[in-house]
Order: sequence, then structure tokens, then C-alpha cells
Amino acid sequence: MPTFEEYVGSSHDRFDEVLIDFLKIPSVSAASEHAGDMEAAAAWLQTFFEEIGFTVEIVRGEGHPIVIARSPKKDDRPTVLVYGHYDVQPPEPLELWTSPPFDPQVRDGAVYARGACDNKGQILTHMLSVRSMLETEGDLPVNVIFVVEGEEEIGSHLLEKYLDEHAGELACDYVVVSDSAQFGPGQPAITCGLRGIAYFELRLRGAKRDLHSGTFGGGVTNPANVLVEMLASMRNPDGSVAVPGFYDDVIPLLDEERKQFASLPFDEQAYFAELDVNGATGEEGYTILERRWARPSYDVNGLDSGYQGEGAKTVIPNTAVAKFSFRLVP
Amino acid sequence: MPTFEEYVGSSHDRFDEVLIDFLKIPSVSAASEHAGDMEAAAAWLQTFFEEIGFTVEIVRGEGHPIVIARSPKKDDRPTVLVYGHYDVQPPEPLELWTSPPFDPQVRDGAVYARGACDNKGQILTHMLSVRSMLETEGDLPVNVIFVVEGEEEIGSHLLEKYLDEHAGELACDYVVVSDSAQFGPGQPAITCGLRGIAYFELRLRGAKRDLHSGTFGGGVTNPANVLVEMLASMRNPDGSVAVPGFYDDVIPLLDEERKQFASLPFDEQAYFAELDVNGATGEEGYTILERRWARPSYDVNGLDSGYQGEGAKTVIPNTAVAKFSFRLVP
Repeated sequence: MPTFEEYVGSSHDRFDEVLIDFLKIPSVSAASEHAGDMEAAAAWLQTFFEEIGFTVEIVRGEGHPIVIARSPKKDDRPTVLVYGHYDVQPPEPLELWTSPPFDPQVRDGAVYARGACDNKGQILTHMLSVRSMLETEGDLPVNVIFVVEGEEEIGSHLLEKYLDEHAGELACDYVVVSDSAQFGPGQPAITCGLRGIAYFELRLRGAKRDLHSGTFGGGVTNPANVLVEMLASMRNPDGSVAVPGFYDDVIPLLDEERKQFASLPFDEQAYFAELDVNGATGEEGYTILERRWARPSYDVNGLDSGYQGEGAKTVIPNTAVAKFSFRLVP
Repeated sequence: MPTFEEYVGSSHDRFDEVLIDFLKIPSVSAASEHAGDMEAAAAWLQTFFEEIGFTVEIVRGEGHPIVIARSPKKDDRPTVLVYGHYDVQPPEPLELWTSPPFDPQVRDGAVYARGACDNKGQILTHMLSVRSMLETEGDLPVNVIFVVEGEEEIGSHLLEKYLDEHAGELACDYVVVSDSAQFGPGQPAITCGLRGIAYFELRLRGAKRDLHSGTFGGGVTNPANVLVEMLASMRNPDGSVAVPGFYDDVIPLLDEERKQFASLPFDEQAYFAELDVNGATGEEGYTILERRWARPSYDVNGLDSGYQGEGAKTVIPNTAVAKFSFRLVP
């Protein structure tokens, strides 16, 4: 019988096969035509957990099912709850994929498919770790509860409702959330907070129809001109947000936090090179890591107005739409 | 044999049919996929002119062809040159059309299709007038040269080049330009000047791919934020254009011109009501007619960036594109 370490060390290809099988299920929670695939993904998880002797409960309600799997409970052990989700983001635009999103391919030792690193790969790491330990040592040192939901990408509505009514059934000593990030390749990180978001859609309407700029330009209000002025007015020249009161409740970074951030092996030039940019703009007086992790931000996420095709159209659009958002911190 | 007036008076429906046939050709000069339709429109004109005994020359070069058609030249007559264009603006956004742009429909006595009043309807008025006179009186009192180009909507590059090299071949006593407007329904106008245009497409690129605003927001340059700031910076709070030197060569309106404009029966409230707006913004110190006819203007004509679909996507777009233009005066 190999040890746990030997077993895991020699199972790389077998683990990849399991991941690839899981990734083939196009469990796109946002798209109603994938409702059947959501069920298939939940059933796939149920089978996995039942095969390792866990008790599986499928929580149903309005939305996609939650899979809850429990190891046989032993009272003398602490309980660890592992959270993950089996739903994935829509794969569009498809033309940007090197290989089809639900036909997983291994390239340079990495598996490429929609959901591979958000979140099927991570949750499966925990699942395969538990299975490997059971197969080599026959037992676990802790009670484990897996909660794998199907609506993380669309708001976790069913989970929120379930937790309101059944939180006690998930009582535990530790929670492990596997839906987070590494600091870099080979550099794991413990996420202790994430920025929130306030997202807006702003829709301006001018005249009841598009107008010719030669006949009307200067004599009517162009909603596209007004939109860019409104959006621009929300940022100061120093990169800070210009909305009155925006920073009132923002807790300043502690010197200690700034020192810890600064001590990380973050290579600004390598970061820019990876993004293929020469540099960055942002809030003055803060490093890039401080801006990304601890400062609020303002981003225009979408612009849609007038003529967007090839060549020129001298139109005064009658509508102008922006999507924009603020990332929020404590 | 009917007189010219009788013939024209009784041919309304037949003339409509010819217009509808012409309007069915989707001769969108800006879109390269319509190159074949541009040729079809030029060929349609060639057939029309040859059937009435005109000599047709198709001028070719880089761009869409110019159709030049000449009546049999008689030296004792003055020569009238009639200018028009067979190209049309892109019909997008298609969802705002009551009927398809290239499937002409008659509603309340008016023909609705892309190009019906810019410029296929107008140029055809002259063409059918000439044909009607030839069919009823057998001759014309003047020599006529039609110049119908295919690039009016995209800069008239081929025509400009042709005129540089062959202006003498178009020598004439009068020029009639049929690509103009009425002051209002039942109020014809003689156009003595039109504003020019300088049209730009501005394309900004940020990182090499779209980024997640939670992980990257604030730490990278968002091209959509920069775009709105650049576009907004080109207009002053008083509505004037903020580009340095922009007004250097603008000739001020004469008092006499301002008086003439003011004496026109222009009803500002009716104008706003027709456009379904409450009022207008524009350059301070000028009436709406002055702004429209005699002052330069700045309009954003198109915006395209990031996510434009339903709901929210917390994306930092990697490109942001604007089309904008300045209307220019002497």
C-alpha cells in the first residue's frame, strides 16, 4: 500500500482524467439552455461523493441544485466545510478560444477548458485529496462537509436562501473556500478579504431618432457627448474617484499592511510585461498592489452608442449607454 | 402626345416604381461587403442613362465608380451639370427600422428606405425630369451632364482626384446640386453653403486581454475611462470646442446674416417637440439656427467598448473605440 504522498505523487495523469471528465460538462449557469447540463454536473458530483462513502444531499429550489456531501460523522473530530461551485461563466466570445471551451486540452502541462481554474479544478483538488487519503489511509482526521453550489456565477440565490434556513446543518469548525487565487505561479495565497462592487447602467436618450450631424450638430443635445462628460467627471486628475463622500467610510491602510504588501515579491515590470502594457495609471500615492487589494476603484465596463461599424457615419446618436462600477473596500 | 406637365402629373406611381427599384440596391459605400452592390448601382444608372440616349462614362480608380452621363452635345445651348450620389449611409441599427432599409415601403404617400432622401430620391427627380421631357418634347433646352458618384458618404476621394485631373471635361454654365434640404415641409430653400466635416476614429488599447475589475481595477489603465476623459476634454462648459486654435480661422457671423436668420419662421418649441426633447444644449451666445448653419460643432458619433449585453459583466475592456467629428465652417 503506497503512502498518501506516494499515491498522490504518482496519480497526476489519473487526476487529470477526472478533471477533464468534469470539465466536459458545459455547466453554464447563466444560460437556460444548459439547465440539463447543470443537473448532469450535480449528478457527476453525487456519484463521486457516493463512491467515496459520503452521504449526499441535493438541495433543490428555485435555481440550480446545491450538492452537499458529508463524510461519516465522528464526534471526536473537528469539522471542516469545503466550499466550491460547479457552474462556469458563459464561454463567449468563442472565436477567442484556442481549443473549444468544453473539449479540455492539455498544453504545456496545463488543462485548458472553461471552468478549469474557476472553480472545477480547485474544488476537485480538495475532493481528490480526500479520496486519496481514504484510499491510502482508510480514514480522515476530520469530519468533512462539501458544499458545491451551481449559482456562484449568477448570485448564489439558492445558497443564500438555504443558509438562511439551514445554517445549523452546516455547523463546522473551519471553512475552506477553494474559489480564490494564487499570488503567482508557485506562490499560494490566503485570501483574507475581497473587494465588493456597486455596478450601474446609465442610459441617456436625446432626440427620438438619430440625427445627421451636419444638419443638427451643435443645435441639439448629443447624449454621447453628455455621457462621456458624466463618466469623465467621476474621476479626478490624480486618479481618485470624484463622487462626493465616496471616501468617507474607507478605512485607511495601516502602515503595517503597507509594509507587508511592499515586502511581497511583486515585480511591477513583469506584471506590465505580462499584460503587454508600458505602465499603468491609477490613484496617486498607492502602489499597484495597494490599488488592487485595498483601495476602491472606478471602471467603465461598457460603452455603447451610435455607429460602431467600419468607416464613418456622421450620426448624432439618440441613445448612449454606459455600464460602470466601483470596487468597494471596508 | 401629352404635354410635359400632363405626363409628369400622371406618372407619379411609375416614378415611384423606378425609385423603389433604385432603392433596393444596398449601395453602402462604407462597408466593403457591399462592393458588389456599388457596382450594381452604377450599372443601374448606366442603363437608365443609355436608355434615354445619353453617353455614359464610368470613371474608375481607387474607390467606388463615378457615373458621368452626357446628353448629345449641341453647341448653341448652355450646359447644366447635375451632381448627385448613389451611395447611402450604413443602415444600422437595423432594429430601429419600421420596415427593412432596402425593402422600400410606401406609407402615407412617402417612400421609406435607406437613401430615399439622401440622395437617390433627389437625383432621380432630375433624371426623371430629363427623361419625361425627352419622351414628351423629344429634346432638351440645355446640354446636361450628370455626375453621380459613389463616395459622397465617405469623403468623395475618387471624385476629388478626378476633378483635379479632368475638371475641363465637366465645363458647364450651371451646376445643380440635388443633395440638399428644404427649410421645412412646403418651404424650399436655396443652399448657399454647407458645413464641412473632419471625422476621426480613436482606438485605445489597454492590456492584451479583457481583465476582471475585482482583481485588476485601479491597478491598470482602463482604456474606456481614458477614452471618455479624452472625449470630454474637447468641449468647454459653455459648449464651445476646447481644441486649441479651433476657432482661429472661423469667420464671425455678420450682423446682417444674424438678422436674416432671426427673421425666418423658425419655431424653437415646435422644433424641440418634433425631436421629442425638452430643450437643447449648445454653444452659448448663438441661436439654434446659427449653431446649425454657421458655427462649428463637435459630436461624438459612436462609442464601442466592453460589455454591452444584458445585465452586468465586471470587465475592464482591453479596447475602447470612439468615432467623433467636427463640423467646420469658413
